[in-house]
Amino acid sequence: MQYMPVTESMFLIGETRDQPMHVGGLQLFIPRDGQTAADLADEISQRFHEATDIAPMFRKRPATPAQVAGYAAWTQDEEIDFDYHIRHIILPRPGEVKDLLRYVSQNHGALLDRRRPMWEAHIIEGLQDGRVALYTKIHHSVVDGVSALRLLQRALSTDPEDRSGTAPWSMDLVRRKRRQSAKENDKSLLGTLTGAAGSIVDVAGQVVGLGPAAAKIATAGVMDKDYVAPLQMAPTTMLNQSIGSARRFAAQDWPIERLQAAARAQKMTVNDLIVAMCAGALRSYLDEHDDLPDESLIAAMPVSLHSEDDADGNAVTVISVRMATDLASPAERVAAIKASTASAKKVVRGLKPLQALALGAALGWPLAFASVPGFVQYTPRGFNLLISNVPGPSEPLYWNGAKLDGCYPVSIPMEGLAMNITVTTVAGKAGFGIIGARAQLPSLQRILTHLENALAEVEALPPA
Amino acid sequence: MQYMPVTESMFLIGETRDQPMHVGGLQLFIPRDGQTAADLADEISQRFHEATDIAPMFRKRPATPAQVAGYAAWTQDEEIDFDYHIRHIILPRPGEVKDLLRYVSQNHGALLDRRRPMWEAHIIEGLQDGRVALYTKIHHSVVDGVSALRLLQRALSTDPEDRSGTAPWSMDLVRRKRRQSAKENDKSLLGTLTGAAGSIVDVAGQVVGLGPAAAKIATAGVMDKDYVAPLQMAPTTMLNQSIGSARRFAAQDWPIERLQAAARAQKMTVNDLIVAMCAGALRSYLDEHDDLPDESLIAAMPVSLHSEDDADGNAVTVISVRMATDLASPAERVAAIKASTASAKKVVRGLKPLQALALGAALGWPLAFASVPGFVQYTPRGFNLLISNVPGPSEPLYWNGAKLDGCYPVSIPMEGLAMNITVTTVAGKAGFGIIGARAQLPSLQRILTHLENALAEVEALPPA
Repeated sequence: MQYMPVTESMFLIGETRDQPMHVGGLQLFIPRDGQTAADLADEISQRFHEATDIAPMFRKRPATPAQVAGYAAWTQDEEIDFDYHIRHIILPRPGEVKDLLRYVSQNHGALLDRRRPMWEAHIIEGLQDGRVALYTKIHHSVVDGVSALRLLQRALSTDPEDRSGTAPWSMDLVRRKRRQSAKENDKSLLGTLTGAAGSIVDVAGQVVGLGPAAAKIATAGVMDKDYVAPLQMAPTTMLNQSIGSARRFAAQDWPIERLQAAARAQKMTVNDLIVAMCAGALRSYLDEHDDLPDESLIAAMPVSLHSEDDADGNAVTVISVRMATDLASPAERVAAIKASTASAKKVVRGLKPLQALALGAALGWPLAFASVPGFVQYTPRGFNLLISNVPGPSEPLYWNGAKLDGCYPVSIPMEGLAMNITVTTVAGKAGFGIIGARAQLPSLQRILTHLENALAEVEALPPA
Repeated sequence: MQYMPVTESMFLIGETRDQPMHVGGLQLFIPRDGQTAADLADEISQRFHEATDIAPMFRKRPATPAQVAGYAAWTQDEEIDFDYHIRHIILPRPGEVKDLLRYVSQNHGALLDRRRPMWEAHIIEGLQDGRVALYTKIHHSVVDGVSALRLLQRALSTDPEDRSGTAPWSMDLVRRKRRQSAKENDKSLLGTLTGAAGSIVDVAGQVVGLGPAAAKIATAGVMDKDYVAPLQMAPTTMLNQSIGSARRFAAQDWPIERLQAAARAQKMTVNDLIVAMCAGALRSYLDEHDDLPDESLIAAMPVSLHSEDDADGNAVTVISVRMATDLASPAERVAAIKASTASAKKVVRGLKPLQALALGAALGWPLAFASVPGFVQYTPRGFNLLISNVPGPSEPLYWNGAKLDGCYPVSIPMEGLAMNITVTTVAGKAGFGIIGARAQLPSLQRILTHLENALAEVEALPPA
């Protein structure tokens, strides 16, 4: 049995049939020379089934599966039923990308079984362009987006000739990583071994500091007009409805170089540019549905608390960003977003991880009540949607020689937060994954066109 | 808005993530001459997508989707999102029947979205034997097994040349049935139109009679040793555990003529023979797992309350049958089962539908508490598993010329009732569908071999 911190159990307690709390990833691979899509899919399936020495993270499940408070501990399964966890299907003709996105939409709404380790891996063939897709699903109590990307990274290789490709859950990968770390620093192996006990001690140490940190937040809220204080109200929009369990998924990528160039010209970060793209796109989308509010949308952005030596797992807090969707001028919008993210970051930077986590919890306060049916309609909210930007490795990556050609996160809509936008930058591409509640957000795929238009608008601005 | 009787809402209130309350059907079709499996699958998909005039049953959803008491009404959706409800996939190589059963297992554990009409239709290609499968999933609050079979029947034709094949939800089918009924009996059209209001009146009329009926049950319980009275305790076995949401599905069929011959020889009904097959199979299965109890297993068997002129929907109660699994001798077991089912039926026969329903509710009393986590471990139970036998049409059936070659029900495991066996007799075959909680019932497919052995044992008995 292993201690379960509240940052993990909150995703179990907050889960309902209408807001499953798993994150997903969709990756596309190009078969290597001389390999058909069927060959690659069978190779992935075979290697996955052979990876029976499974890392602890993929064997753990809640010790008390029922949906009541008190998920105090994890337990470990010794045997894993691959027939359940590994799924292999072929898309019907014509096998367009939209057929793939439909499959992901249909499967992302289904809850994971709590009586077994909470993950699934879907190997998907049948794309007419000859690529093979891998859709993975893992519970948010087990990993956050940053950890999921680290798992992805360690299952891939920068070497196209590397033929040691295996499953993301293989203990071989953990051992490879440890050997690498041991070379770099003899202490980190010790760090891995004592990690669990160590982090409890850290938590205890940091709780003491919470009072002054809260004071710091309060000060920032009063002093700085760009800072979005916790408990502030965001406008009500179609993004903020009660939702069903069905999902709609849209995805597209942009060259990271293009985003970097546009950001450089405006003296903003890529993160700010992503917010600006989302702001422009949401203005258009809401306007199309006659639902653009007079006040700005407020986005919550998770910020990773990972340090380099971190063990796998969750460590994330949330900042609030005023998206300036009330401003029609792209130039004014960009300026307002830069000011808002800079201010929010200042507050978080001065905090220790647990303190920042507490701030995140404060910003996310309506979520605590979201699983009470109907409650969302009567609750003021701090923000309209979650936007995440999860940076990954920039070099080209390969699985057993098959090139990674796209990588799209599939995140979590919630009660009152019907849309989630997550971006991941991997191997030179920024992959946008937009997941929404199906019935509540019609024509979600239009966002993709609006994102392109919003990027073009920023590119058309004179340099800052 | 439409009145929702407790016989429907109980399936919504009793549903949890670990016991989804939908029933399923798996049908296998042989493409007609000159048609490939892909042709047939595409034809099914096309006809399904064209069937946009949708019968009310497939447009209704709970007016209050959240998981609280008070599902007082149904509401109707005008637009149906076929991209969500109709799914089309191809199984990976080699495309054996076990790959199909795995797909059904994986998908049967997923909850249906309550914010939309609660059904899905999966068109499945890729079987190496060239057949095409149709797996349908519909919430038990909408239909029971008998109604589901009626829906199946009306979507199929006894004429292999009939090319009017359409979706089970098509209004064309409702109209065809009405025209047919009108020919046979002018009154039945009126019956269909006034059905909803009419059934409320019936319910009111029958509630008055409940007191005497309950007395009748009590008398039978005292007078007749073969009658299983409500609240009697069934032994505790591995079938009676707390379950997870993952499922395992096994299916096989036997020629109905073979079952009829064996039943005739023992002067028992086919229903009794099915109980005897299940009893022998469960004896072997539990024995293999060192879990055969000293006392007999008790099966609950739903009995349809449908009359000929009934509207679609639920109307079912439950009788209890002592399965005589404590008797090693097949001859003694057959005799004990005959006595037990005959006695239980006598009680139900004398009751009006709602009274029988109340008896069913009494027999099923632990179900009312089953959704309280952990409760099942401390509750005495009235029975060990549900066995259903749902008779269908006996002639060969075709969908647009493709012959129905197999029909297997996929039912509902519950907290404390980890296994469900449902049998359907259609087109000359008795299709057994065995669904179980995946983690709790290992090697479930062994039951299929045990069923064959149990049938052979009965066949080997001297005629009664």
